[in-house]
Amino acid sequence: MSSTADAYDDLLGRIERYSYLRDASMTLGWDQQVTMPEGGTPARARQTAALSTVAHDVIASEAVADRLDELADADLSGEQAAVVRETRRQHEEAARVPEELVEEISRTGAEAQELWQTAKAENDFEAFAPTLERIRELHVERAEHVDQQRDPYRVMYEGYEPALPLELVEDVFDQLRERLVPLIDELLDAADEADLAGLPDGEWDETTQMVLNREAVELLGYDFERGRLDTSPHPFTSGNQFDCRITTRVRPDDPLDALTATVHEYGHASYQLGLPQAEYGTPLGRPHWEIHESQSRFWENHVGRTRAFWELFAPTFNDHLGTELSPGELYEAANRLTPENLIRVEADELTYHMHVILRTEIERRFVSGELGVEEIPSVWNDLMEEYLGVRPDSDAEGCLQDIHWTGGFAGFQSYTVGSVLAAQLDAAMREDLDADVDALIREGEFDPLREWMTEHVHSHGKRYPADELIERATGEPLTAEYFLEYVERKFGDLYGL
Amino acid sequence: MSSTADAYDDLLGRIERYSYLRDASMTLGWDQQVTMPEGGTPARARQTAALSTVAHDVIASEAVADRLDELADADLSGEQAAVVRETRRQHEEAARVPEELVEEISRTGAEAQELWQTAKAENDFEAFAPTLERIRELHVERAEHVDQQRDPYRVMYEGYEPALPLELVEDVFDQLRERLVPLIDELLDAADEADLAGLPDGEWDETTQMVLNREAVELLGYDFERGRLDTSPHPFTSGNQFDCRITTRVRPDDPLDALTATVHEYGHASYQLGLPQAEYGTPLGRPHWEIHESQSRFWENHVGRTRAFWELFAPTFNDHLGTELSPGELYEAANRLTPENLIRVEADELTYHMHVILRTEIERRFVSGELGVEEIPSVWNDLMEEYLGVRPDSDAEGCLQDIHWTGGFAGFQSYTVGSVLAAQLDAAMREDLDADVDALIREGEFDPLREWMTEHVHSHGKRYPADELIERATGEPLTAEYFLEYVERKFGDLYGL
Repeated sequence: MSSTADAYDDLLGRIERYSYLRDASMTLGWDQQVTMPEGGTPARARQTAALSTVAHDVIASEAVADRLDELADADLSGEQAAVVRETRRQHEEAARVPEELVEEISRTGAEAQELWQTAKAENDFEAFAPTLERIRELHVERAEHVDQQRDPYRVMYEGYEPALPLELVEDVFDQLRERLVPLIDELLDAADEADLAGLPDGEWDETTQMVLNREAVELLGYDFERGRLDTSPHPFTSGNQFDCRITTRVRPDDPLDALTATVHEYGHASYQLGLPQAEYGTPLGRPHWEIHESQSRFWENHVGRTRAFWELFAPTFNDHLGTELSPGELYEAANRLTPENLIRVEADELTYHMHVILRTEIERRFVSGELGVEEIPSVWNDLMEEYLGVRPDSDAEGCLQDIHWTGGFAGFQSYTVGSVLAAQLDAAMREDLDADVDALIREGEFDPLREWMTEHVHSHGKRYPADELIERATGEPLTAEYFLEYVERKFGDLYGL
Repeated sequence: MSSTADAYDDLLGRIERYSYLRDASMTLGWDQQVTMPEGGTPARARQTAALSTVAHDVIASEAVADRLDELADADLSGEQAAVVRETRRQHEEAARVPEELVEEISRTGAEAQELWQTAKAENDFEAFAPTLERIRELHVERAEHVDQQRDPYRVMYEGYEPALPLELVEDVFDQLRERLVPLIDELLDAADEADLAGLPDGEWDETTQMVLNREAVELLGYDFERGRLDTSPHPFTSGNQFDCRITTRVRPDDPLDALTATVHEYGHASYQLGLPQAEYGTPLGRPHWEIHESQSRFWENHVGRTRAFWELFAPTFNDHLGTELSPGELYEAANRLTPENLIRVEADELTYHMHVILRTEIERRFVSGELGVEEIPSVWNDLMEEYLGVRPDSDAEGCLQDIHWTGGFAGFQSYTVGSVLAAQLDAAMREDLDADVDALIREGEFDPLREWMTEHVHSHGKRYPADELIERATGEPLTAEYFLEYVERKFGDLYGL
């Protein structure tokens, strides 16, 4: 290219095209989960594979490599440098991994999902173990293609969280382990006396629950001109700054479950919808994976699980469900600890993190080869006993409960990083806003909260690496301190410690 | 490539990829019409444009050109030759059109759809006119790239109907104009005396009507494991042999309107769903545009508007809508001529074709530049007066009523070709089936009808060019004769001529 400007524009066009194709693919994924008739799977699988291939070709192309070379020492603005940095990262990862390996990983993962379903249904880990080992080998091979010099687990981790040093996250996890295990112990000792309220027994149909869920996110500020709320087997968020949709799933006996999931997904959507529209398709208009879960956790926990929220929302809740619960009772019901629950996705706000820490430990040792695949069930059960004092009776309720490993490793930690960062952002917001945040919540005035997040987080897209963005938004690097203070205070109060 | 087999396989992989990408794009289109939140348009337009571009690159590539060269004189089976023929046609059209133009057409078209909706809602043709003119310019430019030697309208026409000579279709249209205008006149003169039944005044809500519509297409054999029925502003069909969805739109005062549209779209879906699954992605597994409308018209008119169908369906209809109409009354109501109706998609089976002939005339003159965009409303209104004796009060009921021009020109004639061919296929089927077709319909046994169509039409995909397929299925080339005989007999009977 004749000039830096031309090279930059050409590169920008290519990363935009790549983004648009990925977003097209995401829409196909949403459709598959939400609206596609059952019989459509074979056709959809081929459409998705074709889209993957052409998107890969766009980002891994020689042309992108050439532009990156031409721009390597160019004099760029901060925004331009960020675009080049993010494009380079994605290009290198795509260009270094052979297409056949990408395809094998994708095929093996898809087959593994079916195997996993059967193995889980039949509580037969041995039937799944060889495939899990194969997935490990393939992902290690992939990591070695990306960077042969480094520990494969680290490479996998950085695929998710390139800018949050692994050591920092490990340090955060050590602190959580150190303080959460005794805290949970203390709280459980106090549980009988505290006798927190729960929901009454009952059944609430899907239509009723969905009207309630819709009202909740409308209240929080979800813009239905740029979103939708549907149901799917697993709740998820899909979209961009123009159109970001959420789903939830409904359990007849537990309307708090769907409501919490809905508010959680709303948090994800608020991030997407807060990205700058003018930067759609460029890295400046895309979210950080490292940050995403903090937004869902902020709305789920720091808004939806507060006493102030239930003071606001209890009448609506009672109205729709025909209950007569006080705000205090609903606040307690939304925050009851259930450490006896063996299933991560049903865990409470606090014990949840021991589930994540357990998986992170196991997958790290498994990826390194230190832990053999056949040892996973017993190590899992031992750690459950150590952390939460319960031991699964079956692998279906133990190491077979999550589908995630069919898609690879080193992604679980992001759930806990999200909660930790949510508390840190919440503290910074409360410090920063010239208002009583609880009073705002109680009044249903959520705009200032969302606007603070948009200003300090969403609007930057990937302008700054995640670690720098965190420091700019909160004044300090990621730290466990705010989260630990928050849960100690909140659950200490609830359980009368 | 070292061998014919290698070259063929390579070509096949490329045309499959192209098909998958087009189908991905079709799903995005369905989503945009049915489920997408309003605000999503800008992002969707860019996703669709990017998909168009990469699909274009796949089919227009040097590699495809090389394979086609290598296979030019190869010894191929009939199926292989058909794949090569269809791929060559698509390759040549795509290779001749510059990528930027494809992208601009796609983006402009997507944005125009939203503009059209607003313009129609606000009866504001002037707001839409500049975009319509831009669409014309872009499509003329496109046609000139495809073939600079020929009339752009003819090039556009052959993009839709490559195997049905324009002269043949014009000849068919001339015969229709010649015999339909006096027939309609005669029928209208007899209308008072005939005094055909209509629906009673009333309002039926969307839910009720949609249950009825669903039941109707289930009865006809629509497989909901491979389909869906939704509402959208303009009814359409979208999909493939694994997943083919239909939409309809509901008018509270006229349940026959939605029902007819639903059955029509079911006909389209029956074609898609009858294509061979093993050939998904190849031309042998794709439908002919030239044939498609014959399938919707067959089910709409030759099944759904027969006396036999109403003898079967009247109880269901009455049941859902709380009416007490006899089969004869419903047959009359479904076939009443309403030349005063200004809206094509609500027109009766007969006057409908004057709407199509009107559009075909206007678009041909508009494309050639003979007719300025600003003249369209008045020319439209003049022709409506000339052909049907009515004049629209507003452009919303006139030239803004259809969305089609946002996607280009020269497609409207296919609606009338479809009716003509449906009558020809119906005659061939009745001749061929060893059964009384009316009795089958009366008994609700639609499988033999659909199976005949699948055997003679659907299962071949594009194995034969459309003209050859028509001759194979009916024993003769496309002719207006069966349609004219059919309408003269049917409406003559109804109106007592």
